[in-house]
Amino acid sequence: MTTYWCEYAWLPDGLASGVRIEIERDEIRSVTPDSPRTENMLYGLVVPGFANAHSHAFHRALRGRTHHDRGTFWTWREKMYALAEKLDPDNYYSLARGVFAEMALAGYTCVGEFHYLHHPGGGKRHDPPHEMAHALVSAAEDAAIRLTLLDTCYLAGGFGRELDPVQERFSDGDVDAWAERVDSFEPETPQVVVGAAVHSVRAVPAEALGKVAEWAKGRPLHVHLSEQRAENEECLSHHGRTPTALLDEHGVLGEHTVAVHATHLTKDDIALLGRTGTGACFCPTTERDLGDGIGPARALADAGVRLSLGSDSHAIVDPWEEARALEMNERLGVERRGRFTVAELMGAANNYASIGWPQLGRLAPGAGADLVRVDLENINTAGIEPEAAVFAATAADVTDVMVAGRWSVRDGRHQNIRNPRAVLNREIGKLWQQS
Amino acid sequence: MTTYWCEYAWLPDGLASGVRIEIERDEIRSVTPDSPRTENMLYGLVVPGFANAHSHAFHRALRGRTHHDRGTFWTWREKMYALAEKLDPDNYYSLARGVFAEMALAGYTCVGEFHYLHHPGGGKRHDPPHEMAHALVSAAEDAAIRLTLLDTCYLAGGFGRELDPVQERFSDGDVDAWAERVDSFEPETPQVVVGAAVHSVRAVPAEALGKVAEWAKGRPLHVHLSEQRAENEECLSHHGRTPTALLDEHGVLGEHTVAVHATHLTKDDIALLGRTGTGACFCPTTERDLGDGIGPARALADAGVRLSLGSDSHAIVDPWEEARALEMNERLGVERRGRFTVAELMGAANNYASIGWPQLGRLAPGAGADLVRVDLENINTAGIEPEAAVFAATAADVTDVMVAGRWSVRDGRHQNIRNPRAVLNREIGKLWQQS
Repeated sequence: MTTYWCEYAWLPDGLASGVRIEIERDEIRSVTPDSPRTENMLYGLVVPGFANAHSHAFHRALRGRTHHDRGTFWTWREKMYALAEKLDPDNYYSLARGVFAEMALAGYTCVGEFHYLHHPGGGKRHDPPHEMAHALVSAAEDAAIRLTLLDTCYLAGGFGRELDPVQERFSDGDVDAWAERVDSFEPETPQVVVGAAVHSVRAVPAEALGKVAEWAKGRPLHVHLSEQRAENEECLSHHGRTPTALLDEHGVLGEHTVAVHATHLTKDDIALLGRTGTGACFCPTTERDLGDGIGPARALADAGVRLSLGSDSHAIVDPWEEARALEMNERLGVERRGRFTVAELMGAANNYASIGWPQLGRLAPGAGADLVRVDLENINTAGIEPEAAVFAATAADVTDVMVAGRWSVRDGRHQNIRNPRAVLNREIGKLWQQS
Repeated sequence: MTTYWCEYAWLPDGLASGVRIEIERDEIRSVTPDSPRTENMLYGLVVPGFANAHSHAFHRALRGRTHHDRGTFWTWREKMYALAEKLDPDNYYSLARGVFAEMALAGYTCVGEFHYLHHPGGGKRHDPPHEMAHALVSAAEDAAIRLTLLDTCYLAGGFGRELDPVQERFSDGDVDAWAERVDSFEPETPQVVVGAAVHSVRAVPAEALGKVAEWAKGRPLHVHLSEQRAENEECLSHHGRTPTALLDEHGVLGEHTVAVHATHLTKDDIALLGRTGTGACFCPTTERDLGDGIGPARALADAGVRLSLGSDSHAIVDPWEEARALEMNERLGVERRGRFTVAELMGAANNYASIGWPQLGRLAPGAGADLVRVDLENINTAGIEPEAAVFAATAADVTDVMVAGRWSVRDGRHQNIRNPRAVLNREIGKLWQQS
């Protein structure tokens, strides 16, 4: 049993001070506010670990590299596919190791990887077939971050369209082959949860949706939903209904399902997501970067949809900025302040349940011992009220991170990976030099 | 003469590498790309100092303190006025010293202070009458940041409305008294430029606008313009024209004028600003925070309006984030990527001319020696192309800052103020304890 004393801590009821936390192995045993200072002092604010509910790890290699000729969506997409083609299990592991370390340093203790880079392309298969997934598992293990591997079904290049050659490596050919492959994947670590994903209603034909949902039963099931208006228009013209309605019709919505982005929804879509208990994962810094638009976060929350947050393309990796942007985007969209409470923003940032870890995301007895210390005396956090850290802090203010009872980051240094920034520099440099 | 060698530098033509910069006293003498490595190596990227074209220094004390009950606009405004009432020359100086140091650490080398806290309130006057302005001058001097004092005319509480009691300290009573007071202000340092400001068409009656413009002739003249829709509606109903048209009618627009915010404009307004050579200062992180909405930045630039950037309420002090947000807000608004080039974003961030320092804001012979070094090998900047720093860097990546040929920040430490974060903690804490 180890005891820590936190100057301030974010508890399920809100901010508390002088909080003693007792941890045994990987679990929190007790949490006692207003306790006298003892040993193992954690000054500043301690919050539950952040859950990164939507990630494509390899997109990190696109950061600061898609601005040429102003960087339209097509510049970005072309580069993203060029990058996907270069990746093999070895360099995917090496890159993801740096990316997950960046997440760990920023305070993420769990990541939901929306994984569709399954195969080498050209109809070939890795041997073993899960080599790319194992690369992610190993990288997450090295970086001391919990992993939810959302194995993604990806079968088509659009509504009624064949796959592009570059998309072939994402596909198992048909949904049965997808299910069979996923069935056979058994990661050998307790820090990994396996779930499923429907890439989108564009990439999974309607007749295959039910099969994915059936396979996923009880596991997290994620799906890109209505990120751009074009998807809605094509879906309406092809199926006569919105993507949300189509997913519902095929049993994809529900308590374990998370709609990622959920940017362009009708009122009926919002009600349907609420009624079915479906969650919604916003990725504000990516949605900004890709020009997706501002999704109806407040309306979804009002409909009972549980919000989560993801860094998605990793244009920015900063859980504070994602949580802040959830509120700021709303303000920009509706031209009003005060759309979410701090508790709502923190709840979205700590939504572990959305990626299959319901026992995490809060500082409470019985919860997993994942926590993050943030410095409240940096130049940018100086003078704020501690509970308002979400309005001032950045990833650079995160000093210490604990995952399952062990420190993964101390004083801003990753404990397992000596120099994560050098890893990223080297691996990203190598990927772009190859071309 | 001191010679520096920059791994990368942002020059008027764009990115260059191996750049030798010779500096004599406060001026850049020569800039030579592709030079061999010599002494005084500056690794990473060197950019011109950032110009913070719109600031209300005292608003920094509101950061992380206006979120209660969700923090509506009225929560914010009430707190802002409560704060304004507490300030006197002594605590204003002490607070501004910390705020300007935060700006310096973030890479700002010049700040345009939109200054309206002139008097003690209740019709009284400080003795000397410029004590509050001198507090800002001293604070800027301590923090080694150039100051443009935009002495603000503020006479009314709204269209045809008297001042609120709390607003009385902003007012000189009438425009002649304002002009007389400003005339008598002579700061004793070359690092200060004096300009003028019209608070807004709400706070300066139409008949006084011409007088302010006349006084300002040839000096920077700033004005809050159409930040919220309510201003437009009231102006239309009171004057039968938009705020932009009203300003034009009274000679306020022109080459030396900057419209601050410029959020809600008609097509005619945009054309008029372009035609008159007026600039526009966007404050994206404040406009987010206050729920102002997304201004027509691209349309203004296309009309020939020169854009600048300001941190305004200092919800965030980060020139990289302001520049990035200019682009990101556009993307959110029009749902398209690639609205500005990197050169346009950097130009807005370095727009010294907008606050009366046309000889600054570029690394070129004859320009003032203001520069900023940013680390490209931090975890968040690793792997990017150097010219895309604006898409990845934050204030925390700024390591060194030079103002007028002297280092104000080295290795992330302010050279004149030992512990700026302690200053902010102490001064902000004191202000809120008083109540």
